[in-house]
Amino acid sequence: MASKKSDFLRNKIEPFTVEAGAPAEEILRKMERISFQGRNLAIAHQVWKKMLADNVLIFLGTAGALSAGGLRLLIAHLIEFRYIDCLVSTGANLYHDLHETRGHHHFLGSPEIDDGLLQTEHIDRVYDTFVDEDEFIENDEWIGAFAQTLDPRAHTSREFLHLLGRQLWNETGRNGILTSAYRSNVPIFCPAIADSSIGMGLSQARQHNDDHGYLDVIGDIAESANLVIERRPTASIVLGGGTPKNFINQAGVQAEFYSPGGEGHRYAVQIVTDVPQFGGASGSSLSEAKSWGKLSVDGDHVTVNADVTLALPLLVSALSASAAPLLKARRPPKFDLAGRAISLDGRLLPLDRYISR
Amino acid sequence: MASKKSDFLRNKIEPFTVEAGAPAEEILRKMERISFQGRNLAIAHQVWKKMLADNVLIFLGTAGALSAGGLRLLIAHLIEFRYIDCLVSTGANLYHDLHETRGHHHFLGSPEIDDGLLQTEHIDRVYDTFVDEDEFIENDEWIGAFAQTLDPRAHTSREFLHLLGRQLWNETGRNGILTSAYRSNVPIFCPAIADSSIGMGLSQARQHNDDHGYLDVIGDIAESANLVIERRPTASIVLGGGTPKNFINQAGVQAEFYSPGGEGHRYAVQIVTDVPQFGGASGSSLSEAKSWGKLSVDGDHVTVNADVTLALPLLVSALSASAAPLLKARRPPKFDLAGRAISLDGRLLPLDRYISR
Amino acid sequence: MASKKSDFLRNKIEPFTVEAGAPAEEILRKMERISFQGRNLAIAHQVWKKMLADNVLIFLGTAGALSAGGLRLLIAHLIEFRYIDCLVSTGANLYHDLHETRGHHHFLGSPEIDDGLLQTEHIDRVYDTFVDEDEFIENDEWIGAFAQTLDPRAHTSREFLHLLGRQLWNETGRNGILTSAYRSNVPIFCPAIADSSIGMGLSQARQHNDDHGYLDVIGDIAESANLVIERRPTASIVLGGGTPKNFINQAGVQAEFYSPGGEGHRYAVQIVTDVPQFGGASGSSLSEAKSWGKLSVDGDHVTVNADVTLALPLLVSALSASAAPLLKARRPPKFDLAGRAISLDGRLLPLDRYISR
Amino acid sequence: MASKKSDFLRNKIEPFTVEAGAPAEEILRKMERISFQGRNLAIAHQVWKKMLADNVLIFLGTAGALSAGGLRLLIAHLIEFRYIDCLVSTGANLYHDLHETRGHHHFLGSPEIDDGLLQTEHIDRVYDTFVDEDEFIENDEWIGAFAQTLDPRAHTSREFLHLLGRQLWNETGRNGILTSAYRSNVPIFCPAIADSSIGMGLSQARQHNDDHGYLDVIGDIAESANLVIERRPTASIVLGGGTPKNFINQAGVQAEFYSPGGEGHRYAVQIVTDVPQFGGASGSSLSEAKSWGKLSVDGDHVTVNADVTLALPLLVSALSASAAPLLKARRPPKFDLAGRAISLDGRLLPLDRYISR
Repeated sequence: MASKKSDFLRNKIEPFTVEAGAPAEEILRKMERISFQGRNLAIAHQVWKKMLADNVLIFLGTAGALSAGGLRLLIAHLIEFRYIDCLVSTGANLYHDLHETRGHHHFLGSPEIDDGLLQTEHIDRVYDTFVDEDEFIENDEWIGAFAQTLDPRAHTSREFLHLLGRQLWNETGRNGILTSAYRSNVPIFCPAIADSSIGMGLSQARQHNDDHGYLDVIGDIAESANLVIERRPTASIVLGGGTPKNFINQAGVQAEFYSPGGEGHRYAVQIVTDVPQFGGASGSSLSEAKSWGKLSVDGDHVTVNADVTLALPLLVSALSASAAPLLKARRPPKFDLAGRAISLDGRLLPLDRYISR
Repeated sequence: MASKKSDFLRNKIEPFTVEAGAPAEEILRKMERISFQGRNLAIAHQVWKKMLADNVLIFLGTAGALSAGGLRLLIAHLIEFRYIDCLVSTGANLYHDLHETRGHHHFLGSPEIDDGLLQTEHIDRVYDTFVDEDEFIENDEWIGAFAQTLDPRAHTSREFLHLLGRQLWNETGRNGILTSAYRSNVPIFCPAIADSSIGMGLSQARQHNDDHGYLDVIGDIAESANLVIERRPTASIVLGGGTPKNFINQAGVQAEFYSPGGEGHRYAVQIVTDVPQFGGASGSSLSEAKSWGKLSVDGDHVTVNADVTLALPLLVSALSASAAPLLKARRPPKFDLAGRAISLDGRLLPLDRYISR
Repeated sequence: MASKKSDFLRNKIEPFTVEAGAPAEEILRKMERISFQGRNLAIAHQVWKKMLADNVLIFLGTAGALSAGGLRLLIAHLIEFRYIDCLVSTGANLYHDLHETRGHHHFLGSPEIDDGLLQTEHIDRVYDTFVDEDEFIENDEWIGAFAQTLDPRAHTSREFLHLLGRQLWNETGRNGILTSAYRSNVPIFCPAIADSSIGMGLSQARQHNDDHGYLDVIGDIAESANLVIERRPTASIVLGGGTPKNFINQAGVQAEFYSPGGEGHRYAVQIVTDVPQFGGASGSSLSEAKSWGKLSVDGDHVTVNADVTLALPLLVSALSASAAPLLKARRPPKFDLAGRAISLDGRLLPLDRYISR
Repeated sequence: MASKKSDFLRNKIEPFTVEAGAPAEEILRKMERISFQGRNLAIAHQVWKKMLADNVLIFLGTAGALSAGGLRLLIAHLIEFRYIDCLVSTGANLYHDLHETRGHHHFLGSPEIDDGLLQTEHIDRVYDTFVDEDEFIENDEWIGAFAQTLDPRAHTSREFLHLLGRQLWNETGRNGILTSAYRSNVPIFCPAIADSSIGMGLSQARQHNDDHGYLDVIGDIAESANLVIERRPTASIVLGGGTPKNFINQAGVQAEFYSPGGEGHRYAVQIVTDVPQFGGASGSSLSEAKSWGKLSVDGDHVTVNADVTLALPLLVSALSASAAPLLKARRPPKFDLAGRAISLDGRLLPLDRYISR
């Protein structure tokens, strides 16, 4: 009969062995049997596959300079092939995506540079990444001009971003986060849009024409919660923490208030560099989220403490092979985003009222 | 004649010596001559005093669970005695402040706890801090009810939070962040209010009455930039990073676009646990901010890498003695916040148009 | 009858209030009722006082550039007034202490500097701290010359460092870590002395005279464990992690092997910037240490995640007032360190054999 | 003529694109054109290849729980195929390697566990990794017994570890770090061996027989510097920081003192989770190392801020394909380690005297 001790010591670490030419999915498969954050990334791979196999609505949150940092086509890939169903993003990641979709670029640089010189040269720095400030100013004006073409009423960030993606696609025909989401009918929420250059562009629209440049971010709250009520169970994938992390969790909590009976997000993966010890939301543990009812008590949850630029390329490269059959079999939620309110699987979701289920 | 080498080796470290009963300002004064983050906190003390001595408008940004964590009266003190002139906050810090002002509490707890049990008991956890979830639900409803008493139009977060502070003061007569700001006529911006329980309360107002529960967060952008245009030079104190950090910087950048000739924030202090290496805005260096024109190239800037709950009590305790004469001599910007738009030193700041200077 | 929920919600956070001129102990007393790392530092203050009130042998571990960073006189103070009984240190902290005791200095600098220029100028940098490399070279030679004056046999690091402290005191009469430990008969262990400039100096002694420059670091292992066996219970204060953290714990584990019946260190405080998630020993949790028997299961243990240069000045300033009566009443272990082996409370501790108790 | 601005903006970020079945080297190749730590890992891949192409002696430092964490066969692979020439390790990594080579295991566990229960069950925890404490005790005794079979004199850690590897190979015939190093004649230094269970085992040898259990760690200092003097230029790869990081750098500095004309390590890669801001050596920047002359001013140097368990599997998987021709062409330094002193390319390196070149 097994003693307690042997129960604890049942699953052996299998040291990682090297194989020339190994593909990503093989590397991650071996990492399941090692320790620390290497193991956690391998578990994230497995949990994401469970999300895809189960019939859940998958939220993706993106914070940190992921687009400027070179991950925008990878995120567009996740959208296009429906590894995820709804994006919640900081404004910066959408703005930097727009920047490249409009034909501009970010550049490789060095963090050890004279920033005063960069200021003189109109170059903006994000750690080791550089951008032409004059192009940014032109983007802002383009956003302001576009906003003036819309109906003179407040839009949710979700509606505005769908229309923005449509405009970008029509103008450029280029792939990116906003354009892929537009073409794939995947909604994007941006709760902190007022803290971004997109918001600045909108304020410039209003400068020119005070009928324009209004957003309805409270409508975003109701709409996101209604997604949960309408299409439980749900899952959360968080890259970098920030406002998207809480907004995704808030949707579940708000849904539960008006339409009890959910369980919190059934699956959760987060890849963050912050840690819980300082009390901030970005680094908070997934266990803590259970106390709030944000996550299900018994679900599959894993935190990977890593820079997203290092972890995500390996993770999605692996998924692109290992999850292919799951993606093929998957029946994701079907959105119609052309109107003022979202239609989900044929049912219109109100902006100003919570659904009862 | 001094050689290059001796130039580098001019300022000796003076090892910290211990003195029984030493007050905070004496401890920080000695820390100026040691290294690493201890020195940086001491420099922050000096830079803050320079802000107070110079005729600048001082922004304070608060992110992370500062109110829940026990710092709300300390921040209220900064507001009341005008160590700062304008607050930019996450929604959570204002909500947790409201929670206590309404007579509820946060509680000491342990991070090593069964979160499933907490969920059952309706207790929400923030690392080692606990709160009664049922009281939170009641707060949300109170906010929703209050919002229904306002004019049926969109409010900037700034206007809404001033009215919320007034209501709280009238109901409770208790000191806190919102009530102190109300009484001291210090504006509060909350650009990511849609990502908070205050936003959730507003959505509940709309649930009941769809004329209410609208915010104008783009108006906040214009108004905050106009503060800078009207009352340069400016300074930035950032606790914890997050949306307030960028919003404060964005105000300066937007101001420069419409009314060139500023320099970026002349002084800057940030106390953050994030680091720059992962590209996120919370951890970004103040040097990097110069490249964007967010900070002046030659100003006094210092980053303290520390948990705010550990660093701020010592810092503000020291300031309360060392800065007393500066506070007395200071002539801070004078706001009138009763109307839809801010009046600053007698001049009304438009919400939908940038001032020209 | 109290429900479970109210049990969890019994101890209210009391928001920190500001008082001009408040002394360190008052600031820390108030920080006991706030959250996160601020609270943890306040608990560390209380746990240290418990160590002093209880009849325990207190180990202090010092890693990171504490001496170069300006904390050497503070550590000397802890030694002289017997806040602690035995020091375990990295070589660098002792070497940098020797540097200043010999009349040299460390200097304030900037981390944003051309390091190639510093190399040309013979200036060595530790983040924002500079030192004259030529003075370091002269120190190494002084250590080498001193080592040649000793008996031509291997010394434990403990014996060698006591003799080094004696020599420094006789030459300089200056206060510091090594000289205070010499004068107070407090033993210092340096398990990784081969990874330091002190080790380099010893290798230069051997270069000149191959009868000298030998150390017996295995003897340090036996001697440190015998301290525990002879004078249980014990306590551990760790600043910065590193080799001292494990060496202090190892002493307890080794003691238990030869003389069972201990409990692990009864009290433990660590102030570290590392976190547990990456598996390294510096960041490992004190809970984890219980599994190894390094710490008692029921003892008082607290981790403070903070830079030591920021946390220790406040902590020791507070203790210097709050712990004064405890220090006066304390009867610390009494060492005689003049011989090859330690005498503790009159009993000689073997270097090559574990005591049986 | 190119303006300054366009110089800064010459190298475009190329967003990462996903390809099913992509091998590791392809993933890393694409990561060269993104930002932050993803880019740094890709640069590390390139710098390591430069080390292999150039005729340099390559040091590898290993700290943190890499062996317990499942990376020991990967490190053995680096040794066996001479991606590296000399290992400097913490004692723990060698001890945990010995543990598995002797047929024991580490186990997958959870960091959220009752550590008091683990103590009762004699299970030791390293974050999410478990081990049988009784097997550890038996290892210690095996080391103690082995040490008693050696000549009754002090051994350098380098000599002792070579003999230990030989014994392990003869007993078990199993692959691992110690056995691969033995079979490949790759030297291993362990400067902090007194802070490890190997040191504890040696102290137990002395307990039984006081002619045994002596180490000569100062001899390690001279020998490691002589490696540099004899076989410049050199390179440094550091995993996790700790004592190996400084010991590898110290060897170069000490070499320069006795035999000037070197340049510091020409190439350097470090993968660490620590950051520079707190002044500790583990997190110190490679730029700072230039000021000390530890690294060449113009060499290729890169820091990757990441958990080794996450970064190294991808990195070495890529190298195993991309570096194969370089490994084949490489003529690594040839060691004979059978004697008391190292023979390098046919020349005996003294333990107690620095070579003049």
